[in-house]
Amino acid sequence: MSRRAAALVDREKEDTVSHADLDAIAAPHALEPTDGPLLPEELGLAFRCHGLPLEALRDELTPAGLHYLVVHWDIPHVEPGRWTLSVGGNVRAPFELTLDEIRALPAETVPVTLECAGNGRGRMRPRPVSVPWLDEAVGTAAWTGVPLATVLERAGIGRGAREVVFRGADRGVQGGEDQVYARSLPVAETKRPEILLAYAMNGRPLEPQHGAPLRLVVPGWYGMASVKWLTSIEVVTEPFEGFQQAVAYRYQTGPDDPGERVERMRVRALMVPPGRPDFFSRRRYLDAGRITLEGRAWSGSGAVERVEVAVDGRWADARLEPPLGDFAWRGWSFGWTATAGEHQLTCRATDAAGNVQPLESPWNYQGMGGNGAQRIAVTVR
Amino acid sequence: MSRRAAALVDREKEDTVSHADLDAIAAPHALEPTDGPLLPEELGLAFRCHGLPLEALRDELTPAGLHYLVVHWDIPHVEPGRWTLSVGGNVRAPFELTLDEIRALPAETVPVTLECAGNGRGRMRPRPVSVPWLDEAVGTAAWTGVPLATVLERAGIGRGAREVVFRGADRGVQGGEDQVYARSLPVAETKRPEILLAYAMNGRPLEPQHGAPLRLVVPGWYGMASVKWLTSIEVVTEPFEGFQQAVAYRYQTGPDDPGERVERMRVRALMVPPGRPDFFSRRRYLDAGRITLEGRAWSGSGAVERVEVAVDGRWADARLEPPLGDFAWRGWSFGWTATAGEHQLTCRATDAAGNVQPLESPWNYQGMGGNGAQRIAVTVR
Repeated sequence: MSRRAAALVDREKEDTVSHADLDAIAAPHALEPTDGPLLPEELGLAFRCHGLPLEALRDELTPAGLHYLVVHWDIPHVEPGRWTLSVGGNVRAPFELTLDEIRALPAETVPVTLECAGNGRGRMRPRPVSVPWLDEAVGTAAWTGVPLATVLERAGIGRGAREVVFRGADRGVQGGEDQVYARSLPVAETKRPEILLAYAMNGRPLEPQHGAPLRLVVPGWYGMASVKWLTSIEVVTEPFEGFQQAVAYRYQTGPDDPGERVERMRVRALMVPPGRPDFFSRRRYLDAGRITLEGRAWSGSGAVERVEVAVDGRWADARLEPPLGDFAWRGWSFGWTATAGEHQLTCRATDAAGNVQPLESPWNYQGMGGNGAQRIAVTVR
Repeated sequence: MSRRAAALVDREKEDTVSHADLDAIAAPHALEPTDGPLLPEELGLAFRCHGLPLEALRDELTPAGLHYLVVHWDIPHVEPGRWTLSVGGNVRAPFELTLDEIRALPAETVPVTLECAGNGRGRMRPRPVSVPWLDEAVGTAAWTGVPLATVLERAGIGRGAREVVFRGADRGVQGGEDQVYARSLPVAETKRPEILLAYAMNGRPLEPQHGAPLRLVVPGWYGMASVKWLTSIEVVTEPFEGFQQAVAYRYQTGPDDPGERVERMRVRALMVPPGRPDFFSRRRYLDAGRITLEGRAWSGSGAVERVEVAVDGRWADARLEPPLGDFAWRGWSFGWTATAGEHQLTCRATDAAGNVQPLESPWNYQGMGGNGAQRIAVTVR
């Protein structure tokens, strides 16, 4: 653990739910980025953290069970009947809500693309050591719930409030610290009407692994902001410095760089791999002739305004589909006359803020925000 | 590819749906088992092939999205309205059925534990190179559908029939062969009333990744027998020698050993990892005192009759729960007074046929049937 991280752990007693002697925790601290082989722990995380099979990019809304999934510790067992959400801190009127009370409030449904901030990490060199995602940590669902703003208005945010802290029921050890999962949003951000306290996903009750009975959904931000198994909302007057905010999820140049908070999703396009795959190599085989390449693109900083496809390094514009929503990926297609031989396909997106997806992910110490372009090797026969 | 595999590929024209020149396929052939680092392809398969998070062993029936998942190639896009099941070959009356016709037949619901035949492969040394499963390739669902025997009786199995071949809509390249997924069962096996043509899982319509609109479920056998996206059932008079039967899914000592067919699941127990995990190492932390360890055990060769738990190598019997069904895992529990310090937990099962789960998986060339005991490192404070 870096000096900065150690100092923060020391400071953040408020976020430490157990009074275990931290020195006695034999957990490995953050490992340095490596050019070495994949570790058994990284493999275990790859099986626990489910990826989107890229052929599922053909669906506007990701079917249940195919949405990417990160569970930091264990999926907690939450009994909906005994669960409540507490809303408090620097508010005029703190209160608790049962699930039935939340369901009785006016609901919204918003299609949202969520992506793990660590997507692309497994391709970075040297490789930051955590979940070694390649391209698959993404998914889009129609989330249904109560706008966060509705609940915060009812509580009445007090003067001097700076951030709102969201805590989950999931608990475990990370970086030597025994903790519950907790993240914050600036107060101004919490007023966005599309931020939901969601209890349904694609028209069905939330699954345990997606945060049942209630989760936060923060459209536009990487997934770490969308706290699952939500148990409390606390308005605070100081910047929140919990582990998942101040130590994890930072753009850092090295272990002692405080870095910048990871927030909005960087612009990115993915393609449905065309043709048929080889089981092991995932190399694609397809027949010569006219085909349509297709995929989806998204950004947390504005609408996707352009998608380009390159066949063997020659770029051309793809055709964009109408947007699915302001916070969801946008479909695209590209006609290609496939000729016999070996080809390399890739794609990249540009958003309304002028961000152009890079071909290689910019490296950083924790492997965050990797949006390097997908590359697909195809054999045309 | 082994000489035997090459010979079979040559012989099996019936199972080759494309007449592509096989020599032109640049796909890597089966790699030799290795003590080397994990390959990028193995990592990609780990993200595509979803594992059961082991805390989900607490549920008798695995919630949607947590059941283990293997997709050899891509999840095919099957339109239920245009889909039919053809039943033919050596039968008195071949026919086709629509999904509505299948749903109109008398249905059964059976709780079934399915496990990938490659479970445990990633722990074998040298490591056979394919999906590098550790312990998590398992799940239990209540499957609903029509007994296979009902449909075969209607067709009337002809004289001289030896096997029944099941083909799926999924297609791709494996071992240099362009193929559809196909497996067979001996005719005698197909008369087992619990084998289903399933269209629902845990009371919901099948998800695309689990074989929608219809899949085979063969209780007691490893998952490779339960063909997904089923399109045809063919009664044949010769042993079926398709790739997934004659080349893949064999217990082999080496590449030129024809080996034995992989069929029934070997006896195995798993434990819910107790306490709280470290995010990366998955080491468990728990408080000293009395706790109940729990888990589930199964076998394809008969009821689980005994589960033992070892704490630091000292074995004692666990308490068995009533069976969930003849083809599903059986719950168990074990009281433990956790004392401060480092401990190793493990468990093993014994079935009615007298099979005792080994501590280490027996090695074989393809990494099949690995049922070595799970080991959990815990720190008690």
